[in-house]
Amino acid sequence: MSTAPSFESASYQPPTWEAISQAHARIAPRIHRTPILTSASLDKLAGAGLFFKCENLQKTGSFKIRGAANAILSLSNEQAARGIVTQSSGNHGAAVACAAAWRGVPAYIVMPKNAPAVKIQAIEAYGGKITFCEPKVSSRKETCDRVQAETSAHLVHPYDDDRIIAGQATAAKEFLEEMPDLDAVFAPVSGGGLLSGTCLGAKGLRKEIRIIGCEPARADDAYRSLTSGTLQSLESSDTIADGLRASLSPRTFALLRRHVDRILLVTEEEIIAAARLVWERMKIIVEPSSSVALAPLLKPSVVKSLNLPRRSDGHPPKLGVILSGGNVDLNALPWLP
Amino acid sequence: MSTAPSFESASYQPPTWEAISQAHARIAPRIHRTPILTSASLDKLAGAGLFFKCENLQKTGSFKIRGAANAILSLSNEQAARGIVTQSSGNHGAAVACAAAWRGVPAYIVMPKNAPAVKIQAIEAYGGKITFCEPKVSSRKETCDRVQAETSAHLVHPYDDDRIIAGQATAAKEFLEEMPDLDAVFAPVSGGGLLSGTCLGAKGLRKEIRIIGCEPARADDAYRSLTSGTLQSLESSDTIADGLRASLSPRTFALLRRHVDRILLVTEEEIIAAARLVWERMKIIVEPSSSVALAPLLKPSVVKSLNLPRRSDGHPPKLGVILSGGNVDLNALPWLP
Repeated sequence: MSTAPSFESASYQPPTWEAISQAHARIAPRIHRTPILTSASLDKLAGAGLFFKCENLQKTGSFKIRGAANAILSLSNEQAARGIVTQSSGNHGAAVACAAAWRGVPAYIVMPKNAPAVKIQAIEAYGGKITFCEPKVSSRKETCDRVQAETSAHLVHPYDDDRIIAGQATAAKEFLEEMPDLDAVFAPVSGGGLLSGTCLGAKGLRKEIRIIGCEPARADDAYRSLTSGTLQSLESSDTIADGLRASLSPRTFALLRRHVDRILLVTEEEIIAAARLVWERMKIIVEPSSSVALAPLLKPSVVKSLNLPRRSDGHPPKLGVILSGGNVDLNALPWLP
Repeated sequence: MSTAPSFESASYQPPTWEAISQAHARIAPRIHRTPILTSASLDKLAGAGLFFKCENLQKTGSFKIRGAANAILSLSNEQAARGIVTQSSGNHGAAVACAAAWRGVPAYIVMPKNAPAVKIQAIEAYGGKITFCEPKVSSRKETCDRVQAETSAHLVHPYDDDRIIAGQATAAKEFLEEMPDLDAVFAPVSGGGLLSGTCLGAKGLRKEIRIIGCEPARADDAYRSLTSGTLQSLESSDTIADGLRASLSPRTFALLRRHVDRILLVTEEEIIAAARLVWERMKIIVEPSSSVALAPLLKPSVVKSLNLPRRSDGHPPKLGVILSGGNVDLNALPWLP
């Protein structure tokens, strides 16, 4: 029996560029190459050139299909045969259900009972079998362990998995392939799978790029972990950003410590206002978890505080924003009574 | 004084391919090259491969900026100096206000008093000066004539203008440049500017392509005109597709008679259901006028009734849909009480 890798030490080797390129080749025929959109009016508000990588327009409505497809499509027939099990606040569950359907195997999804109805319906539409749990990290894990023991299904964790991180990295890889001179990339952080992948995918193509994680103040474990230097837990959270209620793992914590420049916190009001702005100005639907990555840029002091190096072309900074998903209940918009 | 061109006769020469290419070169640096998106779940519903040209993601939130920018940027300084005047249900008004602001000249917009608040606000945000009129074709024209007489501004009609038609043609030109083997293009029809441009832009690159106009049954003048062979008027209309309340002009009627294969009518319920489906499945915001072009494709019998030639590659038909705009009031969604 091998020793479990220590993420605390320098010995953890995150996914290599080769693993990310292989992931990209594996999933590209199945997923969308999402567009990068711009908005002159949002540029004006931010005082910067903003470029939005629209993973809300991705298959299953979020970036999660990248990691899930990479993990599930790389399994042997034997590994996949008893199905896939995971825990998810919704988007990863839909992605696992979708990719498992591509493989023709069952998907067992454990999700908190306060997950939005629209995310539950999406998982059911892909044929996923749902088990509900309490909206706490501990309950998620216990329930997932139990379902796994009952089914012998293969576990595809939403973020504590190098195959997932390599898959999520392909979004930033596409971003930098098309926009090689971005000065920084902003992405939301929850368990840290997307943000870890964003570090690897972006820095693999532009070493000096800044990576900024954005997090709801009501679910601030990544902020506390990275500022204190010790992994902090998050027992429960009620942020409207329903995709950002998980907490870092030792693996993602180790990776983010090495690569992330800053974590910025935003309030619930800022999240809702930023979401509405994207709907209004860009005519695309983002869920609150997405707009968390735009919200800090609407505070004029923030971009300045990052002290980005002056661009040699004299332009304002070029900032990439990953819009992570677009799964919202169209009968209950955050800004409607 | 020269004789007015007769659109009834074969003597009317619509914009040439050269005029369309010049329009494209003129406006391309100012506008978005909008993405073409797909949706596996909508393909399944339609029984066809659907490709959506997303003019809802265009500057000002609709294709209208293409024609307005072409007309206004091609004026001499002298012609532009006293400003631009137009009548519009909203999107053309915002486009004229935006392009006039690029030229640094005033924009006088006549719009029906039942136009959505969000469209009024957009025009005001671009600095346009609004005069309201009754929601009738006759009142629109009279009010516009009066404002033009008072200001001596240059008239840029929303569709009865070859510069506008050449500009709108650039959407279909981009579409066919990227998707050269489309079997048909579906576009909404109101005054006929977009549909006329779609005919010219698409057939200029693929002579045999079918062009299908889609129209609310509550504003069916194009359907009645093309089936009867005589230009029919539309005195008033209360369709939810607020961008489709105008009627053909002799110019657009002449052009559509030559090039359009069919006009399909859709009910209000079908328009709303199709809009909601685009929001839910594609995560993009379309206004009801846009979803008019998708709605017929959700009726399984419709694609069959078009008798499209069998594709040599054995694939189901590849159908292009122009999503014309995304300007909706986010406080009053069509499907909410």
